[in-house]
Amino acid sequence: MIAEYPPMGWNSWDCYGAAVTEAQVRANAEYMAEHLKAYGWEYVVVDIQWYQPTAVSHEYEPFSDEPMDGYGRLLPAENRFPSAKGGAGFGPLADYVHSLGLKFGIHIMRGLPRMAAHRRLPILNSDYRCDQAANPNSVCAWNPDMYGLKCDHPGAKAYYDSIFALYAEWGVDYVKCDDIAREYPHCQREIELISEACRACGRDMVLSLSPGPAPLDRAEHLKKHANMWRVTDDFWDDWRLLKGMFERAEKWCVHAAPGHWPDADMLPVGALRQCYDSHPDGQWTRFTQAEQRTMMTLWCMMRSPLMVGGDLPKNDVFTLNLLTNADVLDIEKDSWCAHPLYTTAEESAWIAPRKDGKGCYVAAFNLSDRARKISVNPALVERRCARAAELWTGKPARGGQLSAKLAAHDSAVWRVEY
Amino acid sequence: MIAEYPPMGWNSWDCYGAAVTEAQVRANAEYMAEHLKAYGWEYVVVDIQWYQPTAVSHEYEPFSDEPMDGYGRLLPAENRFPSAKGGAGFGPLADYVHSLGLKFGIHIMRGLPRMAAHRRLPILNSDYRCDQAANPNSVCAWNPDMYGLKCDHPGAKAYYDSIFALYAEWGVDYVKCDDIAREYPHCQREIELISEACRACGRDMVLSLSPGPAPLDRAEHLKKHANMWRVTDDFWDDWRLLKGMFERAEKWCVHAAPGHWPDADMLPVGALRQCYDSHPDGQWTRFTQAEQRTMMTLWCMMRSPLMVGGDLPKNDVFTLNLLTNADVLDIEKDSWCAHPLYTTAEESAWIAPRKDGKGCYVAAFNLSDRARKISVNPALVERRCARAAELWTGKPARGGQLSAKLAAHDSAVWRVEY
Amino acid sequence: MIAEYPPMGWNSWDCYGAAVTEAQVRANAEYMAEHLKAYGWEYVVVDIQWYQPTAVSHEYEPFSDEPMDGYGRLLPAENRFPSAKGGAGFGPLADYVHSLGLKFGIHIMRGLPRMAAHRRLPILNSDYRCDQAANPNSVCAWNPDMYGLKCDHPGAKAYYDSIFALYAEWGVDYVKCDDIAREYPHCQREIELISEACRACGRDMVLSLSPGPAPLDRAEHLKKHANMWRVTDDFWDDWRLLKGMFERAEKWCVHAAPGHWPDADMLPVGALRQCYDSHPDGQWTRFTQAEQRTMMTLWCMMRSPLMVGGDLPKNDVFTLNLLTNADVLDIEKDSWCAHPLYTTAEESAWIAPRKDGKGCYVAAFNLSDRARKISVNPALVERRCARAAELWTGKPARGGQLSAKLAAHDSAVWRVEY
Amino acid sequence: MIAEYPPMGWNSWDCYGAAVTEAQVRANAEYMAEHLKAYGWEYVVVDIQWYQPTAVSHEYEPFSDEPMDGYGRLLPAENRFPSAKGGAGFGPLADYVHSLGLKFGIHIMRGLPRMAAHRRLPILNSDYRCDQAANPNSVCAWNPDMYGLKCDHPGAKAYYDSIFALYAEWGVDYVKCDDIAREYPHCQREIELISEACRACGRDMVLSLSPGPAPLDRAEHLKKHANMWRVTDDFWDDWRLLKGMFERAEKWCVHAAPGHWPDADMLPVGALRQCYDSHPDGQWTRFTQAEQRTMMTLWCMMRSPLMVGGDLPKNDVFTLNLLTNADVLDIEKDSWCAHPLYTTAEESAWIAPRKDGKGCYVAAFNLSDRARKISVNPALVERRCARAAELWTGKPARGGQLSAKLAAHDSAVWRVEY
Repeated sequence: MIAEYPPMGWNSWDCYGAAVTEAQVRANAEYMAEHLKAYGWEYVVVDIQWYQPTAVSHEYEPFSDEPMDGYGRLLPAENRFPSAKGGAGFGPLADYVHSLGLKFGIHIMRGLPRMAAHRRLPILNSDYRCDQAANPNSVCAWNPDMYGLKCDHPGAKAYYDSIFALYAEWGVDYVKCDDIAREYPHCQREIELISEACRACGRDMVLSLSPGPAPLDRAEHLKKHANMWRVTDDFWDDWRLLKGMFERAEKWCVHAAPGHWPDADMLPVGALRQCYDSHPDGQWTRFTQAEQRTMMTLWCMMRSPLMVGGDLPKNDVFTLNLLTNADVLDIEKDSWCAHPLYTTAEESAWIAPRKDGKGCYVAAFNLSDRARKISVNPALVERRCARAAELWTGKPARGGQLSAKLAAHDSAVWRVEY
Repeated sequence: MIAEYPPMGWNSWDCYGAAVTEAQVRANAEYMAEHLKAYGWEYVVVDIQWYQPTAVSHEYEPFSDEPMDGYGRLLPAENRFPSAKGGAGFGPLADYVHSLGLKFGIHIMRGLPRMAAHRRLPILNSDYRCDQAANPNSVCAWNPDMYGLKCDHPGAKAYYDSIFALYAEWGVDYVKCDDIAREYPHCQREIELISEACRACGRDMVLSLSPGPAPLDRAEHLKKHANMWRVTDDFWDDWRLLKGMFERAEKWCVHAAPGHWPDADMLPVGALRQCYDSHPDGQWTRFTQAEQRTMMTLWCMMRSPLMVGGDLPKNDVFTLNLLTNADVLDIEKDSWCAHPLYTTAEESAWIAPRKDGKGCYVAAFNLSDRARKISVNPALVERRCARAAELWTGKPARGGQLSAKLAAHDSAVWRVEY
Repeated sequence: MIAEYPPMGWNSWDCYGAAVTEAQVRANAEYMAEHLKAYGWEYVVVDIQWYQPTAVSHEYEPFSDEPMDGYGRLLPAENRFPSAKGGAGFGPLADYVHSLGLKFGIHIMRGLPRMAAHRRLPILNSDYRCDQAANPNSVCAWNPDMYGLKCDHPGAKAYYDSIFALYAEWGVDYVKCDDIAREYPHCQREIELISEACRACGRDMVLSLSPGPAPLDRAEHLKKHANMWRVTDDFWDDWRLLKGMFERAEKWCVHAAPGHWPDADMLPVGALRQCYDSHPDGQWTRFTQAEQRTMMTLWCMMRSPLMVGGDLPKNDVFTLNLLTNADVLDIEKDSWCAHPLYTTAEESAWIAPRKDGKGCYVAAFNLSDRARKISVNPALVERRCARAAELWTGKPARGGQLSAKLAAHDSAVWRVEY
Repeated sequence: MIAEYPPMGWNSWDCYGAAVTEAQVRANAEYMAEHLKAYGWEYVVVDIQWYQPTAVSHEYEPFSDEPMDGYGRLLPAENRFPSAKGGAGFGPLADYVHSLGLKFGIHIMRGLPRMAAHRRLPILNSDYRCDQAANPNSVCAWNPDMYGLKCDHPGAKAYYDSIFALYAEWGVDYVKCDDIAREYPHCQREIELISEACRACGRDMVLSLSPGPAPLDRAEHLKKHANMWRVTDDFWDDWRLLKGMFERAEKWCVHAAPGHWPDADMLPVGALRQCYDSHPDGQWTRFTQAEQRTMMTLWCMMRSPLMVGGDLPKNDVFTLNLLTNADVLDIEKDSWCAHPLYTTAEESAWIAPRKDGKGCYVAAFNLSDRARKISVNPALVERRCARAAELWTGKPARGGQLSAKLAAHDSAVWRVEY
């Protein structure tokens, strides 16, 4: 089963924007294999514009000359991904990642390259050309590369089949498709075409849809056609964004289950914004350690996918520990049916039964800007706790009392046993 | 704790509208004591306009002369509730219900009687008069009896305190307050005043708010101030309304917990509309037996309160069995953290872990208009089922397969054991 | 023809609120007869709550005991209107106003008194009672006196016929009906009933509808059923309100014609708020002299009715001159088809052809907060001006140039001759 | 002064769509010179996609190869406009139109050609390239040719200056700019750039903005920056569209004045849809003769520009007479300050004073689907009519009575003299 549990991995966007290089990807993969793989981390994902020879930051250069094959399929920029030379595409890099015991993923934009339409290139294994399948009025609001497809034209299916065939050849395990998850209703059919092409390509690939917020009232469509989808716009290291995630988590938590996971976006921890000599927001995460615990706790309780955004080799001890707390990470696999008990302006509490029936997880979040003692009402837990341990500190809960004095923005999470 | 589990009982509205009499209430209480009490049913609730001498149907007569005491507190119409004579109010009737081992509830409208304001009656234990506390511009859109209160005037608190003091004297255990649950934001403060008066009156009373749909974004306010609140407009014996409840159940299920329960409204089963010689919709429930199973299953899985709407003494065997299936009713007390696995136009499936950790409940609903085999994907249940039994038929699930051939609108619900 | 020209008169609201007395009305009528009548001013209008014995300000007392006859028709409070004694109603006061060569008007709220419904009073010349015609859910959002009527009940027409019959007996010439002009669509039928009762009562009466803003998309309904209607919410002596009137005037000007006039509301000039010993906004108009000229110019150009709000006997020389500039007042009768040439944040210009074909009026408004020279582009006037005179200063326009240096918020208006 | 009166002319769209040829343009110009010029018709306008070599209908072919010069300025397709050969552009055709005593106009889309951006062509007289000035996310919703400009980039102004310089060289007198009039607020700055380029180019050109509906609340911006702008989406020969125009005319009429005219769109009369062998809607106008009179009457009363849409040489006698009724056409020049007297579902009446002061025009429209006698209430005309003549029939109005029996959708218009 694809995505039986929420996928875990690394994504190049937060640290390298549109400009990541093969060397950086390899270094992150190697770090993951050595330090993280044992904890369940496995996907190494190259984010947007790997085909753009001139990318240097998080900005997109319009009207650039992007490498593509004779069928309008984009190819990695060889100046950034040397192993792609000679038409090898991402095959060699995928092979290398696989050799480390990991899985390889890429980002795509929905649609086909604008110049493939203007050049009227043929679509592989079809009688159609790119200009016939492209919709000249369907352009992404924030990226200049593609035209969306005319989904009722047979060339659209042929084009999507052609790119997933190529990705299968390369050995891709994970595709993050962008400009689509919040683009209902006009992209509903395009999601279906992409999903069908992905599943018919002959290789297991996780299909991830971006950006959010995906519309809640299309949850069933998303669950049917994707393995994960963003429930939020781009998430960065800003407390207001993290606090806002509690509302989205509450609405989406009932839709998390094997095969389809609401996605709260990358974890902006550690070394971010590395494609700049300096950056106004700084290059290390602006989240406090407390906030990072809160983020990890919420993501795990809601069973969101976990994709690290920071440059892994630069991790400090705190960050590595954060990402390798096995007890906390276990929540993703051992719990189910999580939901908030309550959420106010100052605090929130969540509960998640354990699937093995031996207990549950209870999390308490201090959403206020000062230290605060939070005690979860035992009546809401509905079962007498025999024992409980807090998973960030390892401390047992005295008398089964789920209570903690928490610093501003910090959280606690207990494994409760009956 | 008040409402540790979702309240269960009977309400007079569906069968007797605004016109129920003491004799009818006593007959229903006696039936409940004899046939239903053992299964957890306990509240006997007199619905709207028990003060209206001329009520004969579900309609409200405007500008009638309603009995009230010298403090503007409504009293039962003595022609309908003879035991109220001599100023006894609902005391004697409450006593009788209590003598059967049951609990007694009444309906109120927010505000005070219009004529109490026009007569400028004093408010008990205060220096204020009803005309000072009443807001002449706050009238209910569908009932002509009351003026809402000026919640920032001290007379408003005094008035609500005065009526709950009276209800405590009478021995009331349950108050259903109407014209308020969906009236956010303008009634937010009025909800708080009523909640505070209820909790301070010296007697445990369930506080139930109507009508719905209560706004989802005020869930925390409702959880704090009420024990149950309607998530829907009036619910009747119409399949479209029942089918529509699945969407509301999905949104509200995460807010059900001890002390506060989203309420899907009364169960319109058995003998309805009994205050008419005949009624265009008929007097027996128009729900099929399949639909009634589906309703009971959904209400139990979402842990909604259960209030029967039909005239209990007229129950047939089917209805009595429906209301006394102990295995199904157990779901309300034994499960938690329920949520839908998926809901499409044709079918829905729900899951609810058991609090004792020994298994879970899984329900399958045929929402389509024809017979349909529904098989719940084992991957979604996330645990291997050792054994499972369907609770309406008692049949074991062969090989742990959660699969059933269901008639139109019918449902199955399995108790799964690990 | 009723209201062949925009009605001109005085209204008691701005100076005496709900509390005006007969002596004050008589004093204003006498002043009007002596100083204003020659300039076209003729209506003397008693505004809201003349039936309220305890009114002292612009506030409304709820749940008071209002005088009414045995048919639920309100009568003047005799403590305020002594000539109404003995059931004479407004007859003697109307007679006195008529004796001065003027016309008499009153204000009413749509609907019938709440207590007429609660008392179940009969409706004159009908088989119905007030409780049958009243809609207990139709209450005014800002005044506590009335219930709106069930317009599809025959008692509603009977009630409105009964009050207009009474007003005709009294000798009323002008009825300002409130809580109705902006209450589309739910009051559309009520407007029709009132209009029909007014026109069938046997006496010519101007029918004026309040409060605004009346919806522009119902202009034809208003033109058919009323003689004037408010295009704005209550207008007071505040520059922001006056500046905002330019937008409404632009939208409504095409609907001004004999018999039906968009109404920009009373002129708050001179002695306002006289029912207070003092008032936070002061008791004399806060409009500058420049602003008062601008108001008069705009009202005349758009052909709005003119109803003075100040206590006339207290007029100073400026105010009297403002209200007796015959050249400016002539615009109301001599022009037609007026409209703005343009309106920006800083200035506006209007044009109005003269009906006699001998020229046109051109107005220039300085909407900015500092002195400003405004020159109206001759191309927009489309005709060569032979001569032009400015009507506030009396100065001829040199060389036909429509140009003026205007103080902040001031205006100029020229009579242009070909 | 540019556009002192509402422009009158012919436009190729209704009859030849995107496919008009030089021969067709010349034939229409010749017809205009011979038959229409004497009545004020003067502009000959080549509508959309004159640069598209493959255009054959009203459809736009995406991703075609359009002729442009080295600065990204589109050139006429030489296969359709032979005189453009050798880089002459529209110069020779403009010269020919001028030689007939007429004026020449062209259509443009806002923005620059997509391929000019992808080819990174330089912008004339600037240091910028087309890819720098183009906004890759600003595409027209219905036409695939252009990218809108980044209006805060100096290259945007340079590009618009460059194309208007070319049009001035060619001798263009009228530019209809498309994809812009309803595109507020995001195109507000682009309108300003185009307006400034047009006025600074050294040649008088009418600037017309399309398509509508332009937003009424931006009327002053449009009046300042354009000579005419569409108040409606595309208008065709369909009664529902014509009936709907009365509402727009009412809202916009106050904004018509020398230099700036609200535009009700082309007159679809005579031979339409000539670029098809046949067309489902037929090739001759589907308007009845009555409807055509109604359209001409309304357009003249509201002083809309008049641009014929039919292929002029194919005019029949009725159409030629319709377009050469000098009395009706005079309304455009002789009247001002027009507005509707009233408009109901069945009929409308308009009034327009004459600028010379000698009378006015009154029009009556039968909007119902059956014959109807319409009598305009003399009170609304406000002046006693000495004489009046109906301008379509030439008949005098007996006794000055403005009354006519009108066929379904027909109209009458009187010149009233005092």
